[in-house]
Amino acid sequence: MKKISILGSTGSIGTQTLDIISREPDRYSVEGLAAGSNADLLIQQANRFKPRTVCLASKALAEEVRPHLPAGTNLVYGDEGLIEVAAGTDADTVVTAIVGSRGLPATLAAIDAGKSIALANKETLVTAGHIVMKRAADRGVSILPVDSEHSAIFQCLNGERSIDVKQITLTASGGSFRDRTREQLTGVTVAEALNHPNWSMGAKVTIDSATMANKGLEVIEAHWLFDLPYDRINVLIHPESIIHSYVEFVDHSIIAQLGIPDMRVPIQYALTYPERRVTPTDSLNFAKLSALHFREMDFERYPCLRFAYECGIAGKSAPTVFNAANETAVARFLAGEITFLEIESVLSAVLDRHDIVEVPDTSAIADVDAWARRTAAGI
Amino acid sequence: MKKISILGSTGSIGTQTLDIISREPDRYSVEGLAAGSNADLLIQQANRFKPRTVCLASKALAEEVRPHLPAGTNLVYGDEGLIEVAAGTDADTVVTAIVGSRGLPATLAAIDAGKSIALANKETLVTAGHIVMKRAADRGVSILPVDSEHSAIFQCLNGERSIDVKQITLTASGGSFRDRTREQLTGVTVAEALNHPNWSMGAKVTIDSATMANKGLEVIEAHWLFDLPYDRINVLIHPESIIHSYVEFVDHSIIAQLGIPDMRVPIQYALTYPERRVTPTDSLNFAKLSALHFREMDFERYPCLRFAYECGIAGKSAPTVFNAANETAVARFLAGEITFLEIESVLSAVLDRHDIVEVPDTSAIADVDAWARRTAAGI
Repeated sequence: MKKISILGSTGSIGTQTLDIISREPDRYSVEGLAAGSNADLLIQQANRFKPRTVCLASKALAEEVRPHLPAGTNLVYGDEGLIEVAAGTDADTVVTAIVGSRGLPATLAAIDAGKSIALANKETLVTAGHIVMKRAADRGVSILPVDSEHSAIFQCLNGERSIDVKQITLTASGGSFRDRTREQLTGVTVAEALNHPNWSMGAKVTIDSATMANKGLEVIEAHWLFDLPYDRINVLIHPESIIHSYVEFVDHSIIAQLGIPDMRVPIQYALTYPERRVTPTDSLNFAKLSALHFREMDFERYPCLRFAYECGIAGKSAPTVFNAANETAVARFLAGEITFLEIESVLSAVLDRHDIVEVPDTSAIADVDAWARRTAAGI
Repeated sequence: MKKISILGSTGSIGTQTLDIISREPDRYSVEGLAAGSNADLLIQQANRFKPRTVCLASKALAEEVRPHLPAGTNLVYGDEGLIEVAAGTDADTVVTAIVGSRGLPATLAAIDAGKSIALANKETLVTAGHIVMKRAADRGVSILPVDSEHSAIFQCLNGERSIDVKQITLTASGGSFRDRTREQLTGVTVAEALNHPNWSMGAKVTIDSATMANKGLEVIEAHWLFDLPYDRINVLIHPESIIHSYVEFVDHSIIAQLGIPDMRVPIQYALTYPERRVTPTDSLNFAKLSALHFREMDFERYPCLRFAYECGIAGKSAPTVFNAANETAVARFLAGEITFLEIESVLSAVLDRHDIVEVPDTSAIADVDAWARRTAAGI
């Protein structure tokens, strides 16, 4: 019996995690669920999966759901509540499916409590990879990737020696505007940007896919997860999203992980590793595909990816600024405050104004993160 | 220092094996080389790599090369000589790169002598898989695949549990006539048949690729190497030969091995496993590929593959007949005695006439093999 807590249970990754759990109820117990503001769905989840502890974003929301929870449910809220779900239950594995760098304190708390991390909250590694990875290593805690690309790389590395890795390549669908030039991005709507061709994901990551900021976050995440320098991490446009990513070894042999785009496969793998279990997705039928296509990444077309590499290579506090400014810019685009192309210009402007902090600790990261959000909000 | 003997040193796999060895001379010593009739090349190889023992097909050929060998070289010949190179040297690994089922006695002798087998001689497993695999297991000897497809599957299985394998798929380029209908195969020449689009290989395997008999032999080889029933071994047409084969696991995740078609990669992997070393081939550039294509296998277009599945499933002496009749038919086509399409009709006719032998031992296999060759020669 695997004991699970989920940070972000009502989001795309959270609901798909619960879908997996619901298919093999004898294999899992749900210890904790943390949602943001989707009280109705959290109530449904709490009544179905009977977690010991549930969390909502605020005290007001918590009071609203209290009468609808099973008797005996421990109800918490806010950032402290999130930490309680992450570290204060009997869970052996915490699925970190919150979006954004605010997942960091809870993730660190879970690591300190010795929980395995099924990591979907990539911003945590982007903003504080040096802290998270060291803490996990010191505590002997596994960080298992949930992102499809990182799960692919992780699977391709099974049974291989890290010394034999030459380079890795993350594939990118190109997002919702992949067939448009930069000129054709003027005036695109939020609805158009949210219409991802291959993957069903949350709003933030779908916009990040369209700007390629998501792939930038993934490159930095891969740097930390797989301990590789940036010149050995590549990005390739692959419109079909069938090859989820691949590893080239020193003998020029490539091992790739493929499948129908369905996040339940990598989510489940993070829960069952090193075993594999049946998933509810379909087998990939190559003959029906007829063809797979590939294009070189264009860093002029996708400047956010260029910024990400630059920030990753610069290190220190630069990735924190990249992530925080991007989160704010995307929120502003989704709110209709700025245009799609202004996401890039806001990000670029904030990066230009940042004074690098050497070896930032969690407190410095929080300060830099807040500064970048303020600055991005005011441009 | 890895000590190697090569059965079939002057053929395509043999020369590429020596190419690999020549690039890292400090890592390998060549203990034995066995050639057929290419005396000139064997003399060159013997003078360059200084094997303890060399073998040629006949006493006459051996006498011809004797004056040109380095002093002290042990010179042997014929079937007994082949066994001496396979089992009588200090080699720890024997590369079985002979074409055809006549490699069987030497392969068994190498196993009995405790040598690891780098297996390119797929006909050995096809004709006597039940004997070879049991002998290797009893003796604790590794059988490492050299065929690109089987090496791919072997690499994809690294670090995985065999219980998690759902099915495997061997890719097939389609061979030299893949864009022709059956009607367009009437009157094709030997030269046309030998013009393989992707792989540089020997004559026999190139013809077998065009008839798809090669993929049939590989399906039976895979059955023995990976201990899988035939309904979990698939074949897919993939004209570019970039995906060399793949494994689908129970979670519908697919792990594939890819690369530029270059036999030196799988040959070297069989020699360095579980390590990987730099190979002289190029990195695969996906962006330059632009697209990969796939087509369902057509068992009407390629009846030899259908015969192979039928013989594999029938088991017992059927695969021996499939292989021996095919070898004879291909030799007759190469000699200009029969047409390309008659390879299939000869094979079919011999299979129809065969009376199955239950659980054949090596002696029964030799008898069935000889009967099939005689019958195929006389049709």
